[in-house]
Amino acid sequence: MSERLDRLKEINGKLNRLSLLSELLYWDMRTIMPDGGFDAHSDAMDYAETESFRLSNSDELFDLLKELMEPEEWEQLDDDWKFIVKTMREDRERSRRIPEEVFRRAVAISTASERAWEEAKQASDFAIFAPHLEKQIEITKEIKSYTHPDMEIYDSLLDDYEKGMDSETIDRIFTELREGLVPLVHRILAAKQPDDSKFRRTFDIEAQKKVQNLLLTYIGFDWTKGTTAESEHPFTLDLCSSDVRVTNHFREKDVIDPMFSAIHEGGHAIFEQNVAERLSGTPAGGCSYLGIHESQSRFFENILGRNINFWKPIYADVQKLQPELADVTLEEFAREINHVRASMIRTAADEVTYCLHVILRYEVEKAIFREGVPVSELPALWNRKMEEYLGVVPANDAEGILQDMHWSDGSFGYFPTYLLGSIYDGMFLEAMEADLGSVDTLLAEGRIGEIRAWLSEKIHQYGNLRRPKEVLLAVCGKEATAEPLLRYFRNKYAAYYDLAD
Amino acid sequence: MSERLDRLKEINGKLNRLSLLSELLYWDMRTIMPDGGFDAHSDAMDYAETESFRLSNSDELFDLLKELMEPEEWEQLDDDWKFIVKTMREDRERSRRIPEEVFRRAVAISTASERAWEEAKQASDFAIFAPHLEKQIEITKEIKSYTHPDMEIYDSLLDDYEKGMDSETIDRIFTELREGLVPLVHRILAAKQPDDSKFRRTFDIEAQKKVQNLLLTYIGFDWTKGTTAESEHPFTLDLCSSDVRVTNHFREKDVIDPMFSAIHEGGHAIFEQNVAERLSGTPAGGCSYLGIHESQSRFFENILGRNINFWKPIYADVQKLQPELADVTLEEFAREINHVRASMIRTAADEVTYCLHVILRYEVEKAIFREGVPVSELPALWNRKMEEYLGVVPANDAEGILQDMHWSDGSFGYFPTYLLGSIYDGMFLEAMEADLGSVDTLLAEGRIGEIRAWLSEKIHQYGNLRRPKEVLLAVCGKEATAEPLLRYFRNKYAAYYDLAD
Repeated sequence: MSERLDRLKEINGKLNRLSLLSELLYWDMRTIMPDGGFDAHSDAMDYAETESFRLSNSDELFDLLKELMEPEEWEQLDDDWKFIVKTMREDRERSRRIPEEVFRRAVAISTASERAWEEAKQASDFAIFAPHLEKQIEITKEIKSYTHPDMEIYDSLLDDYEKGMDSETIDRIFTELREGLVPLVHRILAAKQPDDSKFRRTFDIEAQKKVQNLLLTYIGFDWTKGTTAESEHPFTLDLCSSDVRVTNHFREKDVIDPMFSAIHEGGHAIFEQNVAERLSGTPAGGCSYLGIHESQSRFFENILGRNINFWKPIYADVQKLQPELADVTLEEFAREINHVRASMIRTAADEVTYCLHVILRYEVEKAIFREGVPVSELPALWNRKMEEYLGVVPANDAEGILQDMHWSDGSFGYFPTYLLGSIYDGMFLEAMEADLGSVDTLLAEGRIGEIRAWLSEKIHQYGNLRRPKEVLLAVCGKEATAEPLLRYFRNKYAAYYDLAD
Repeated sequence: MSERLDRLKEINGKLNRLSLLSELLYWDMRTIMPDGGFDAHSDAMDYAETESFRLSNSDELFDLLKELMEPEEWEQLDDDWKFIVKTMREDRERSRRIPEEVFRRAVAISTASERAWEEAKQASDFAIFAPHLEKQIEITKEIKSYTHPDMEIYDSLLDDYEKGMDSETIDRIFTELREGLVPLVHRILAAKQPDDSKFRRTFDIEAQKKVQNLLLTYIGFDWTKGTTAESEHPFTLDLCSSDVRVTNHFREKDVIDPMFSAIHEGGHAIFEQNVAERLSGTPAGGCSYLGIHESQSRFFENILGRNINFWKPIYADVQKLQPELADVTLEEFAREINHVRASMIRTAADEVTYCLHVILRYEVEKAIFREGVPVSELPALWNRKMEEYLGVVPANDAEGILQDMHWSDGSFGYFPTYLLGSIYDGMFLEAMEADLGSVDTLLAEGRIGEIRAWLSEKIHQYGNLRRPKEVLLAVCGKEATAEPLLRYFRNKYAAYYDLAD
């Protein structure tokens, strides 16, 4: 075997170890660290990230990748390694072009901006955040002028999170979805709403944790390769494909949210746990395309978890663990988990209106980067769109434009991946039913294992090897389209709401 | 300020970050890591430890320490830094003398030996472990021939764990204690034993966790600088003095053990949490003298926790949290937590017989290193001493010489520190009562905060700055003596047992 490939594997090994250390610090800080641990953890995080940055951007690695792409070496590589070497080289090429001064300035801007966002949200005053957001937009443009001089800025931002999913496609499918969805949502919101009084009780938290574990086990979470903890916001973290962790947040007054957080994060985790063994420890050993990743969490959460049939084999067990649900029939439960509301807050939204929350953010990001709309005009733009899509207007900035932290750390282009995930799900559902027959039937018969196996075979096993467009082509045999998702929504919600015009 | 001192602080900072990373891995592996995380964690641990080893033993650090000891630099150092520089230099000088080949061989021997010990304990067959123990003894001697050519081997082993506490002193006080204790234990064991049937119930585990938290809060554990988790064996881990964590292990059938584990580990943690702020992040910022450390965990566990007065202000609250104790009177509870039994297992022993378990191990270690007794003869030696001190003989090696893992990884000289801790406690109790009056009264009046403050002022704040003998002199004004501990045992157990000759 090639000595150079061995050396690359060695460097990857070191990068893996550093990344595991950073992630473990992150995990610890968000799950168990006492306040007093903050400074020492931050110091150690800084150390691990600096070492990793140095090694990732070292001349040695850069030259090694170049040498591996020369014919005599290249021919010895198998397809996996060809993909890995090529991708690493491209990424490194771009990131090495950022002058250190610019990189440091960007870190400083983010730190100040995140703090300002927190303060602004607390005070519900966009004016506090605005100058920082302006700086964040400027530094983003500056960085992109180094890394992607050849690409339109917002395109390159989308590309950062969903490689190869161009804005033309996104524009097309988001428009398709918005045009179909806005009238549907308006009809749903105008229809008679279900009675949710049985869900306004106090639900025992220890019981909720047991329900979480039941759900994770049921959907196929592998406990030998994963574990759980509690944190302020639920997240999934893969230290490696055989140590993938999910968190949750429990509240006495809300029994449903933690169930769906568990299924959602469980979906992310099941993806990572099922990447092919041979890719373990390589840069292709986990999926970094956020839309594809989100398609898996949302497939479990929405397509499966919000289907009444999902609950048929387990609802009696859930009731046993959580006796406060004893008088809630399966049908009442299913209605509530599909209760559509015009919420101000994205993270609290149901699966239908959620799409419009994302489209709104996508359009505001385009306004920033394509149309040059000044930051000062963004809150009004936000509120106008809320009224147009959901028929409600935020009473203040905290429940409006300040609700999400993404822009404070410069994650522009991240939001659309949430919706791409759902759009892909419509397509995956169609492809799955062509292969396996009715998902309703599979779920009702408790054959969720077959669904999980299909997703693993078609999607999970490839980790990072297939880019989003390739996944769609390989699994669904076609380009991205929002039509299947729209059809799914129309069929499903016609059963829950009286949608007569 | 000296540039060299700045550089030393910088290197210390890096060593701290690496040590935090190793400790965080250790924490994670023992509290939450799924099986699948083992390899990646071990790799990352290896990375952090290798980096730390390199930096600790680098020429740069060694030379820097030497330069700081030259007059013009030395005079600029304050007393703390003089102590730190001198100690680091001495430690580095010794450890750098170990040839790398020997160091690597030692690591390999330990790895094999730990595995063999586990297997031997499982099979209850000392013969499986014996050849590994022989190698472990040989490599220990070899390493000591490099690091401590000037010192008798067992003396230098004791010195590793309790700096400056020479074997002459240890021999004197252990003998003093053994001669007083063996007859006392025999009398206690011959006396009428209390009825423990009320403790053979099933105790709710969630309730036990709440009791643990009550106890930790009560003794002064600072939750802003610490947290808890569960692990197979309880331990304390200080990531830094403002992030000190304790673990516990809960069982339905045992309500008492986790209470005293909590108080014990809490005592260790309170020590670390109360080291003076100015020493934070320096090599003197935590206490590495195991006997002194153990004196604090055992003071809380035994001197305070096993005193009936400790429970007076809180016992009703404990009963409320753990209703299975509702019909157990405070007096019955106090009798059970002071129930003396001739147990085979050190970790399950009460505070009195515990001392004899340690003396036995100390004497076996002396037999190995001073008298050259062959490994094959050790089980018989062990069993003879068990019979002499406790009147019982292990039925097999698993409950005899194989019970502890310490020798498998070469921790010879470690056991005595457990008992040194208790002996110091007898002395500290005497000094404390001279200052604060009766501890019984303080406890009964719920004034445990004054006790904690006294310990912090007299002991905790100094971290590593005062060596064990200096601590005794400063706090008690005298050399080590077992007399106060013996007196404490005699008085206390005369009240619990009918000890008429």
